[in-house]
Amino acid sequence: MNAYPIGMFPATFIGGATGLWKIDRCAAVAGEPLPAAERLEIRDGIVTTSGGVWRLAGVAGHTRYVERGEKARLDAVTPTLGRPEATRAALIPIRKSPAWWALTQDERRAIFEQRSHHIADSMPYLPRIARRLYHARDLGQPFDFVTWFEFAPAHAGAFEDLVAMLRAREEWTFVDREIDVRLSR
Amino acid sequence: MNAYPIGMFPATFIGGATGLWKIDRCAAVAGEPLPAAERLEIRDGIVTTSGGVWRLAGVAGHTRYVERGEKARLDAVTPTLGRPEATRAALIPIRKSPAWWALTQDERRAIFEQRSHHIADSMPYLPRIARRLYHARDLGQPFDFVTWFEFAPAHAGAFEDLVAMLRAREEWTFVDREIDVRLSR
Repeated sequence: MNAYPIGMFPATFIGGATGLWKIDRCAAVAGEPLPAAERLEIRDGIVTTSGGVWRLAGVAGHTRYVERGEKARLDAVTPTLGRPEATRAALIPIRKSPAWWALTQDERRAIFEQRSHHIADSMPYLPRIARRLYHARDLGQPFDFVTWFEFAPAHAGAFEDLVAMLRAREEWTFVDREIDVRLSR
Repeated sequence: MNAYPIGMFPATFIGGATGLWKIDRCAAVAGEPLPAAERLEIRDGIVTTSGGVWRLAGVAGHTRYVERGEKARLDAVTPTLGRPEATRAALIPIRKSPAWWALTQDERRAIFEQRSHHIADSMPYLPRIARRLYHARDLGQPFDFVTWFEFAPAHAGAFEDLVAMLRAREEWTFVDREIDVRLSR
């Protein structure tokens, strides 16, 4: 039943004893934590059979809030994943509250961009920080979104500024569970 | 991995030899048809193990294009599923083209409502026709959406008008696979 078309990127993040990425820390920012794991493996596809201490799946695909002008500006400065110098990463799964999901599209967009400036204020951090957003809500996952970030050690400070900025905004008052996993390879 | 929160409705539509609903006809409007089946069973949840000739899963949840004013007007006239007199049904799975999914949110909304009037022109058919939209794209299903409709035999003509109207609009030029399954109980 799982055949994804071109342009969609299903992935499963498996915390356990193996994988390219070493988990340096794993902190619960809000809500229930994840169990401790040493390494992270990233598998293509929605993997339900593998082991691991925890397993988070999601699908990257079409954008849900971005408008054409924003996409043009983003595309011009968005780096690819897998740059050799990007040896630091973060995996940040979040869940938003029932109140968020009860909002209509225009209300969510207004909080996301007009009032929280999620896109506009993230733009200056590009192309230093590569990012891919996986959607997980329709999959019945414990989180609604899983975002994967990659950056060089020299840009670790910029990454801290980016997450601190996002967490301080109105949009983040709707986040009721968030884990911050930091990694290196 | 599949635990859906309150307010989400995962379902699997199973075409086969059993089920409450009798399949009266099953026509491919665009693209590849579905194999013939006699009856339809609707199961709660994403069911991957059952038999059946075909199986379509989706998740009903938050709205993707509806704005607050539209939702208020819709809620006021939206009937529930399962009305005793609603002994006719339609199951219409559709897939939209890669060109649709490459559009940004503002572009998709403009086609959906400003130019195709999907919401405004469907409203007059309520409360005669009950409807639930299941999202399937993130699940890697063969269709992006599965819509379930229920109505009384007296409103079968109105239902034909509704689907003919939607199919004649610009939004539908992006539909590259569509099946129209009609049912009775």
